[in-house]
Amino acid sequence: MTSIAVLGTGRIGKMHAGLIARQVEGLELTAVYDIDSASSQAVADELGCERADSVAQILSSNVEAVAICSSTDTHVELTVAAAEAGKAIFLEKPVSLDLAQVDRAAAAVEAAGVPIHVGFNRRYDAAHAAVQAAVADGSLGDLHLLKITSRDPEPPPIDYIGVSGGMFIDMTIHDFDMARFVTGSEIVDVFTKAAVRVDPAIGDAGDVDTAIVVLTHESGCITTIDNSRQAVYGYDQRVEAFGAAGMAVSENPRSHTAEIHTAQGTRLENIPYFFLQRYIPSYVAAWQAFERGLATGVMPISLRDGRAPLVAGLAAWKSHREGRPVQMSEIG
Amino acid sequence: MTSIAVLGTGRIGKMHAGLIARQVEGLELTAVYDIDSASSQAVADELGCERADSVAQILSSNVEAVAICSSTDTHVELTVAAAEAGKAIFLEKPVSLDLAQVDRAAAAVEAAGVPIHVGFNRRYDAAHAAVQAAVADGSLGDLHLLKITSRDPEPPPIDYIGVSGGMFIDMTIHDFDMARFVTGSEIVDVFTKAAVRVDPAIGDAGDVDTAIVVLTHESGCITTIDNSRQAVYGYDQRVEAFGAAGMAVSENPRSHTAEIHTAQGTRLENIPYFFLQRYIPSYVAAWQAFERGLATGVMPISLRDGRAPLVAGLAAWKSHREGRPVQMSEIG
Amino acid sequence: MTSIAVLGTGRIGKMHAGLIARQVEGLELTAVYDIDSASSQAVADELGCERADSVAQILSSNVEAVAICSSTDTHVELTVAAAEAGKAIFLEKPVSLDLAQVDRAAAAVEAAGVPIHVGFNRRYDAAHAAVQAAVADGSLGDLHLLKITSRDPEPPPIDYIGVSGGMFIDMTIHDFDMARFVTGSEIVDVFTKAAVRVDPAIGDAGDVDTAIVVLTHESGCITTIDNSRQAVYGYDQRVEAFGAAGMAVSENPRSHTAEIHTAQGTRLENIPYFFLQRYIPSYVAAWQAFERGLATGVMPISLRDGRAPLVAGLAAWKSHREGRPVQMSEIG
Amino acid sequence: MTSIAVLGTGRIGKMHAGLIARQVEGLELTAVYDIDSASSQAVADELGCERADSVAQILSSNVEAVAICSSTDTHVELTVAAAEAGKAIFLEKPVSLDLAQVDRAAAAVEAAGVPIHVGFNRRYDAAHAAVQAAVADGSLGDLHLLKITSRDPEPPPIDYIGVSGGMFIDMTIHDFDMARFVTGSEIVDVFTKAAVRVDPAIGDAGDVDTAIVVLTHESGCITTIDNSRQAVYGYDQRVEAFGAAGMAVSENPRSHTAEIHTAQGTRLENIPYFFLQRYIPSYVAAWQAFERGLATGVMPISLRDGRAPLVAGLAAWKSHREGRPVQMSEIG
Repeated sequence: MTSIAVLGTGRIGKMHAGLIARQVEGLELTAVYDIDSASSQAVADELGCERADSVAQILSSNVEAVAICSSTDTHVELTVAAAEAGKAIFLEKPVSLDLAQVDRAAAAVEAAGVPIHVGFNRRYDAAHAAVQAAVADGSLGDLHLLKITSRDPEPPPIDYIGVSGGMFIDMTIHDFDMARFVTGSEIVDVFTKAAVRVDPAIGDAGDVDTAIVVLTHESGCITTIDNSRQAVYGYDQRVEAFGAAGMAVSENPRSHTAEIHTAQGTRLENIPYFFLQRYIPSYVAAWQAFERGLATGVMPISLRDGRAPLVAGLAAWKSHREGRPVQMSEIG
Repeated sequence: MTSIAVLGTGRIGKMHAGLIARQVEGLELTAVYDIDSASSQAVADELGCERADSVAQILSSNVEAVAICSSTDTHVELTVAAAEAGKAIFLEKPVSLDLAQVDRAAAAVEAAGVPIHVGFNRRYDAAHAAVQAAVADGSLGDLHLLKITSRDPEPPPIDYIGVSGGMFIDMTIHDFDMARFVTGSEIVDVFTKAAVRVDPAIGDAGDVDTAIVVLTHESGCITTIDNSRQAVYGYDQRVEAFGAAGMAVSENPRSHTAEIHTAQGTRLENIPYFFLQRYIPSYVAAWQAFERGLATGVMPISLRDGRAPLVAGLAAWKSHREGRPVQMSEIG
Repeated sequence: MTSIAVLGTGRIGKMHAGLIARQVEGLELTAVYDIDSASSQAVADELGCERADSVAQILSSNVEAVAICSSTDTHVELTVAAAEAGKAIFLEKPVSLDLAQVDRAAAAVEAAGVPIHVGFNRRYDAAHAAVQAAVADGSLGDLHLLKITSRDPEPPPIDYIGVSGGMFIDMTIHDFDMARFVTGSEIVDVFTKAAVRVDPAIGDAGDVDTAIVVLTHESGCITTIDNSRQAVYGYDQRVEAFGAAGMAVSENPRSHTAEIHTAQGTRLENIPYFFLQRYIPSYVAAWQAFERGLATGVMPISLRDGRAPLVAGLAAWKSHREGRPVQMSEIG
Repeated sequence: MTSIAVLGTGRIGKMHAGLIARQVEGLELTAVYDIDSASSQAVADELGCERADSVAQILSSNVEAVAICSSTDTHVELTVAAAEAGKAIFLEKPVSLDLAQVDRAAAAVEAAGVPIHVGFNRRYDAAHAAVQAAVADGSLGDLHLLKITSRDPEPPPIDYIGVSGGMFIDMTIHDFDMARFVTGSEIVDVFTKAAVRVDPAIGDAGDVDTAIVVLTHESGCITTIDNSRQAVYGYDQRVEAFGAAGMAVSENPRSHTAEIHTAQGTRLENIPYFFLQRYIPSYVAAWQAFERGLATGVMPISLRDGRAPLVAGLAAWKSHREGRPVQMSEIG
């Protein structure tokens, strides 16, 4: 049983705390911390763990691991501090909006020799993972094309958009990770075609809400990602890998399977609307992977895996601004 | 190239004539006949073949085969005559409404030694055939259950119902054949639960329009058939075979594959409404089987295959009247 | 917040205790009891509640509700005692194997005036519920046919079969409830065709493992149920309602949505194998309904709803023995 | 009844002749011509029409319409000649590999005032057409993204590749047309990422076999096309339109609907392999549209619709060579 504390009890941190406490064998939630002590107290009460008064209190305790779920701008500071305190680390994405900061975190983690796992939960979605497996086991032969659809049901608050790093870093970062995960090959260049179609206020905040991103990989595979901030029919998440020997597709699950057939046609329920309806099992599986990683010493998603999608996101922005394909090597 | 004439150019005969003339290699439509000479003339003109003035003219000609597509009450007479004239015979279902008449036809065919093929087209539907193949090749292990759904989009004219032999002989006969085909095992007993739910006029005509039929086979397999004269969403034809090692299902094809996803849900087109939309390829395949049967001397669907479903239909009526399972041996 | 204790911490009781403790707002798990105190201690430790030494200790405490999840032969005794103690009751199916006992429980509950909810969880499956809703809201018009498929992935231990009441009471009871739920109409008669096809040892234990059951409802709707103790491809649970204005179908959800297309064909993952993979959300929803029922005073699934499927199960056995349709009124 | 002659009886011309003769009401096939007189004689014999000795013989006859199905390099010459002879014209795609030639054909057709219909059959596929209809009728709101998948099951002969204009003009031309058809908006710029992944011999012939093409439309919609010359699982043709109010998808139909579920998983038949299995109904519908166009004087697919995809194809090649987005206005 590994003891773990959660830093940050906002929406995502609260979810992680609950999953650790209730659904993951081998992990024990011992404490939570948030700058909003009412929030952390409520979580502590509900889950039966301690509420810490400070990060320092947690890092100086004998807790073995921490989950860093606070706002992005605090990720690197907390990662460095946790590493120096010798804690195993589960780090929410994105690592940072700034490459130099990612490198600072990486240096601290390497120096301390602590295990770290970056929380790209979608790798643990059973259907996406089956697509990756079909690539990795050779069922599809050489991979020629990868297509990722990733659309949110509705945009985040405009206030959030300003601090999010923009769509390519806030949202597409998951897709860049998926592209690396499924292809098993690094991204070489990025071409972006993006627009503001959903809400002009998103454009006023300096962001885009609709985009096509085309990637070339070292292997020669070409990936397309299509993003929208607003798919009114639900949270649309699909992956399609096409190769010399076949195709593997991960479709959206249905909310439920009822079909109504009348003289007017056939009606189905829409796909799930909220990301948690779709991805809770993948979050649980990510925690199980973390727990196994502590035991085996091998963490599946490293800080290097946290860095590459950020480079791709920065390249996507540059491509958008300059209207041309951008090499990953131009970014860093 | 085998020459063939079509007897009867009503809806189904006209269809067969067109398929022979245009879509079946190895058969040549040479003549058509119908008591309504305007009907046969129109078909002859459209398809570029001769219009015969009488059945006798066709049977005394050197045509090699005949397709008997006239009304059910003429089937046996024409079969006997065609057999005596030495013609190969394609016979539409049902052979007759009367078992003694079926036996008379069988005797004549046997005496003459002519090839005969009964037109249970659904055996040639690619999806149903794949279910049968999964049973026959052992993929499903011993067969435990078979479920057949067979629903028309709308009832036939009330006039027709009176001469049709009723639902169990007019409509369920296809399903009895399917049950024998998929299981590869004779029917032992029949239990029926039926009602008039669609249209009281059907009841007034002495028929039912909604039914469940349960069959036991020699192999121990239990089959259920569900029938309705009116599925407002389309022509619903499904087969499900369940065994010790798995299940094979033949679903309805879709009219087309477009899906519309909006905030109000997901909409699909209904399944095809008319039986020809669904089963034209199976009619063509049945003709190809007939043509191969002429070459090989082995016809896949014999008069015995035409007789057994009639016995089951009569047993179904008896079960309906008496409210108990009826043995096939009680009928004949 | 309503306090609740769980009686019986076997497989199903342990599951209920966990759901109450972790996933249902408004209920608080305060104690568990089992004759196997090691079992109840383990559950108490894991969920952070008290382990009671006896049922009496729980019934004499101020806990407001009890969940009766012990073996079937104890259900009525515990129901009567809980009612007399004034506790609200959640009762696992089947209520009993004996109708007189069910009536004794009903009398005690009525005398005490306590709320009781019988645990037919499948009514709360979102897809099945959508089928029921399509019937209830008139989308399908008058209901003509209902088809229920209910197949387990593998048989229970032979030891269990002997005390289970047999397939029609242990397993089909859920389907009888589903038939009453979806049609909204009482069952009038039952016809059964059943066999031992999966394992002769099941037959030696006096049970069957493969069955078709045909029901007639007061409304005129005809229902078929098909059951097997062993569907090697997974836990197969489907409902199809067919009426004058259309059809509603509840299909099996998929384990995940990946499809692999190669030159050899297309492969999908099988449906879930374990009933908990399929029905956990329905158990949670059943608890939420219980909690709402406490607030509103209206429990959706009464002891009368617990009784009717038992009558149908007994009728199914009688039909199986006698080879004829059996009226519900012959049973009680 | 409009008389029509077919020029060119290669694979596609023979198909058109057969469809006209057998499946299109209102058109009468009167003659066929091919430089290979054995080919045209065989078609004439099979379909019961005349074999012409020359194009001139046809154009000087009183036939009302011609279908130009000969090799691409003869299209413009024949179009000009047919226009000057006052014939209505059905013209196979692509019009030409050369824009100046397309313009010459257009000038001749305009001068003669004859009706002309370019054979982009896919517009008449029922599922693709339903996607277009959902866009056109506003069901999807403003269109944001369009995704077209178009993959052949296997490459054409290398000899053909050399005279085909390359993948973007031979194959993607259908997708450029689909993009214009579904969006109802002209293409503004084209970005291509392409490679040789299927067969190095294709690269040696100066062509590519795998590509992503990104289009921007005047409306602001962004389209992606993904092409491969070899999808081993079949002829993969899909369209997905995404807008402010929803998504419409046209999926691949299945070859047949049987599913086999065993302990090893679920198996489906692959999608159709040959383009005719998929698109015969769309060819028939295109002919019906031609026949209606003769009656109404409005042809749905004009020479301008034939020209725009060629410009896009040339822009795609330029983008491929130069590694940058290319404006349509750079081409002509």
